[in-house]
Amino acid sequence: MEIAEELAKHQKAISVAEFFEKNRQILGFDSAPRALITTVKEAVDNSLDACEEADILPDIFVQILRRGEGFRVVVEDNGPGIVGGEVPRVFAKLLYGSRFHALKQSRGQQGIGISAGVLYSQLTTGRPTAVTTKIGPTHRAGRWELMINTATNEPEVLKTEETEWDRPHGTRVELEMEGSYVRSRRQSIYGYLKNVAIVNPHARITLVEPDGNVEVFERATDKMPSPSYEIKPHPLGMELGGLIKMLRYTDKKKLKSFLAGSFSSVGAIISQEICDRAELDPEMAPQDLTHSEATRLLAAFKEMRLKSPPTDCLSPIGEELIRAGLEKEYRVDFIATTKRPVSVYAGNPFQVEVGLAYGGELKGDGKVEVLRFANRVPLLYQQGGCAITHAIENVSWKIYSLSQPGGGVPVGPAALLVHIASTNIPFTSESKDAVADVPEIVAEVELGLKEVGRKLRRYISKKSALSERKEKEEIIRKILPRISKKLSELLAREEPDINPVVAKIMGNLLVKRSVASENGLALVTLEVANYGDASKAFKLHETVSVEAEAVEPPARVIALGDGYDHLWKISLRPGERQQIRYTVPSEGVRFSEPVVEGVASELVSGARVVG
Amino acid sequence: MEIAEELAKHQKAISVAEFFEKNRQILGFDSAPRALITTVKEAVDNSLDACEEADILPDIFVQILRRGEGFRVVVEDNGPGIVGGEVPRVFAKLLYGSRFHALKQSRGQQGIGISAGVLYSQLTTGRPTAVTTKIGPTHRAGRWELMINTATNEPEVLKTEETEWDRPHGTRVELEMEGSYVRSRRQSIYGYLKNVAIVNPHARITLVEPDGNVEVFERATDKMPSPSYEIKPHPLGMELGGLIKMLRYTDKKKLKSFLAGSFSSVGAIISQEICDRAELDPEMAPQDLTHSEATRLLAAFKEMRLKSPPTDCLSPIGEELIRAGLEKEYRVDFIATTKRPVSVYAGNPFQVEVGLAYGGELKGDGKVEVLRFANRVPLLYQQGGCAITHAIENVSWKIYSLSQPGGGVPVGPAALLVHIASTNIPFTSESKDAVADVPEIVAEVELGLKEVGRKLRRYISKKSALSERKEKEEIIRKILPRISKKLSELLAREEPDINPVVAKIMGNLLVKRSVASENGLALVTLEVANYGDASKAFKLHETVSVEAEAVEPPARVIALGDGYDHLWKISLRPGERQQIRYTVPSEGVRFSEPVVEGVASELVSGARVVG
Repeated sequence: MEIAEELAKHQKAISVAEFFEKNRQILGFDSAPRALITTVKEAVDNSLDACEEADILPDIFVQILRRGEGFRVVVEDNGPGIVGGEVPRVFAKLLYGSRFHALKQSRGQQGIGISAGVLYSQLTTGRPTAVTTKIGPTHRAGRWELMINTATNEPEVLKTEETEWDRPHGTRVELEMEGSYVRSRRQSIYGYLKNVAIVNPHARITLVEPDGNVEVFERATDKMPSPSYEIKPHPLGMELGGLIKMLRYTDKKKLKSFLAGSFSSVGAIISQEICDRAELDPEMAPQDLTHSEATRLLAAFKEMRLKSPPTDCLSPIGEELIRAGLEKEYRVDFIATTKRPVSVYAGNPFQVEVGLAYGGELKGDGKVEVLRFANRVPLLYQQGGCAITHAIENVSWKIYSLSQPGGGVPVGPAALLVHIASTNIPFTSESKDAVADVPEIVAEVELGLKEVGRKLRRYISKKSALSERKEKEEIIRKILPRISKKLSELLAREEPDINPVVAKIMGNLLVKRSVASENGLALVTLEVANYGDASKAFKLHETVSVEAEAVEPPARVIALGDGYDHLWKISLRPGERQQIRYTVPSEGVRFSEPVVEGVASELVSGARVVG
Repeated sequence: MEIAEELAKHQKAISVAEFFEKNRQILGFDSAPRALITTVKEAVDNSLDACEEADILPDIFVQILRRGEGFRVVVEDNGPGIVGGEVPRVFAKLLYGSRFHALKQSRGQQGIGISAGVLYSQLTTGRPTAVTTKIGPTHRAGRWELMINTATNEPEVLKTEETEWDRPHGTRVELEMEGSYVRSRRQSIYGYLKNVAIVNPHARITLVEPDGNVEVFERATDKMPSPSYEIKPHPLGMELGGLIKMLRYTDKKKLKSFLAGSFSSVGAIISQEICDRAELDPEMAPQDLTHSEATRLLAAFKEMRLKSPPTDCLSPIGEELIRAGLEKEYRVDFIATTKRPVSVYAGNPFQVEVGLAYGGELKGDGKVEVLRFANRVPLLYQQGGCAITHAIENVSWKIYSLSQPGGGVPVGPAALLVHIASTNIPFTSESKDAVADVPEIVAEVELGLKEVGRKLRRYISKKSALSERKEKEEIIRKILPRISKKLSELLAREEPDINPVVAKIMGNLLVKRSVASENGLALVTLEVANYGDASKAFKLHETVSVEAEAVEPPARVIALGDGYDHLWKISLRPGERQQIRYTVPSEGVRFSEPVVEGVASELVSGARVVG
């Protein structure tokens, strides 16, 4: 017998369930803490998707209970529920689902998620998964106990019964598994749900931890996110093999109706134009096209000027929410955000949003923190293997005022948030941890990063120019008094006010108050001078314990508890100055330091600065 | 109608071929250059596995041809061939293969590889894949044209015929696809095959590039690597669900024979002991165990002291080959290697080997280069997402004399090679680019890295101590002569030999020759003194133009072309000295500088150092 004949005896088909039973790490079950996180993630993603499809504000309950040496994971939602006949396959068959074939943004897109949790559960504990679901107030709830037959990848229903449930509709899934519960870090169930809440402010999420501690991530808005609509494939994203397959299996009888009915951005006129250009009869049957005719058709696609695919298949987070999310996560000095236009890879529309937070409580000595999101789902693992990270590494951050020792992720007191929304996120694996290095996506993320980078550079350079200026002024303020003091002593004169000198040297806005006494009245002059080389518009406040009289120019006066705020709106060109006069009684009047509102404090001498 | 009923209409099973058609990036087809590399990788891995199973020295031919706007990839081997009935499913059905169910080290282990290439080929060009195979000299070759029906994941045979082929046996596969051919970098077909050759020196690999350039990676040895043998699962790696499944489907009638026949490290005696400990009747049918009895059985496994799993299921590269591989790749100053003992994760034996190259042509200003291998296959992509990289990042390299600015992969003139051999490499995805963060594997890689790190630290600290010493000595050598010269001038004396002083200050080995004349003879004294604080054993060579006489102690004398080498083996404790005397004619004799062999040159004064 030949060796090949010997070897052939070992050839065998592998069920997809067997495959993932052996390669569970591909599904995100590579360590004990992660098993619990992955299970919660898949269940919560399903709940959010289902609620959005049914236009229901999500209310999701997650509980982790210790059970022997393992855990029981419970996830319950107020979603539309699942019809009985579908329950076994939805939960206990890998590669089964409603969102795989639809070209629209959703969290689940693979048809694997929760069934992977069921597989891991039975593998580690030998126990079935329990599912309770109810599709409306007039229906009874159903309860199933399910396992996966791994040899066939088909569900095994161990038990099924009708039951009472006080919810009007919803789904509850309970799984037992080995695992380990961690709390402290970002890579935890708590950390995951916290990040989900940031980008899904329309959801209320409750977490009950094994020790009984309850965390509620409260709903921040009653507005549902803008819904995403299913679209047809765009001609520019087609590949020859895919086109041939569509031609072969369409139920359209004529090429022209196939074209107009199967693609986005193609109507009757464009359809005719494509046929003309490809020199094909619009009346021919799609099934009859030869390989070379299909090649011509594809070439015609690429030559046409077609509208971009519709963007309502996407539901981005929005710059406002990204800013709010970063503010919720960190106390910082500066936030920049950007939203890139919709772009396309292999026919799939996608859109990149980027946020950058800087300063405040962020630590300056470590790598910049990276928050990755895809279709509103936080990505916790495989940061090093993700296109988002690679794009961050590709940018020269030194240009944008962050250091990058040894290359890679920059170092400094900053955090980056990147969201990719797409009808098909190209994950590197079924565990959906990292986005693959699709050149179009990497390029778009880089562009977004550079945009926020430029905003950061402007902020930092302004800040550092101001702080250098302040330093210079402080030195001048220290030296000038000594000189002036020495001079005063030598000349036996009173020491002069050095503020005007400092303001002149520094090009500052100078505020100077002088008071003369006359007939029991104090005649007050406020002199405001712009020594800078840019125009300045600001408000000047003078708070005095009594209301001033003979005010020129007139001021707006506000009575405070213990005095009066006199307010002038002033605008000065470079070199311009203005005098303000008023009188108060010469005795028993208390002044505060003048206050300037609306100019950086580093640019003002002789007054306190607010706002 | 309830929303759930509406949504249920979209629920649908997904064929695994459809799944990967949409998620091709998971299989390694996320960019044009990578598509070609992945296809070659999968075909070559299959060829190497098949040749090893059939004990054939592999001879593999790879050709890349331009074809229209795409490429034709040809991979041909001299392996055992494939029997006709298996060809369609081996090449045109995902999840089909011989190595998935076997517990032994092999390159292919998923049953996906080459079928993924066929899928990508038909998707991008609409063309079938051609396979030619022959299983022995007395058989005729067969030729197939194949596609995958993605809706069913079953092969479609477009054409099949008998044909002539001049090879005695082997397989040839030809695929057409879109792609892009790159050459220059490590992530290329050339780079991949070069790395394959390094760790598979028993293979000859020929690459014909699109421009006609031919590269041959010649066989470096005729010895096949040590074969890996299939083993049974080890009880300590079992999980409850897996055990219950085995109990349910075994064909053994009694628990004791089930245990003895299904697991490695379990014989009749251990089998009985396990049953006793679990309080189970050894005669009972495995199918009859309840959930709680199975739980007891598993608990008994964990309580037993069992032999480790057999290690002949693995075929490591070996330290010698790792060293040779690194030497082939780089010219360096220093190489350290290590091989960790076999360890186990989730019942799968695995072994880690590490090599470190340092200095030479390696650049010092960038990150350390990382060469990753799994089961003798180079890993080119997803370095940042790989457990090997994470282990490198976890090590504090500063301790081992490499800098690590901002954490992460260290910086310096070094390269790291890590090989993981296992019966089941836990890849993060089907593209087999990166190893998942399985805690046991990360820990073992870290230990291996620390071992070579310690060797590096010893090398560097020795080198730097010596170089500091040399520098100090050079300073002394420069200053002392000036002092001695000044003194000589002042005292009008001859300038003294400063070598003994230097040797004393530096703690060196001093060699000093002095010559006195007497009766027409030169009386030569070699004084050798060890001023160091360690014993020194070395050879002293004195090369003179004539043979010496009255040599005391006696020397070994070797006649050279133009003189005589006199050789003494000397061993000196710290502080010890020795005198050597001999005579030569006082006229017409030429001496060379004495030579010391076997002591670092930095530690010797007054003699040249060799070896």
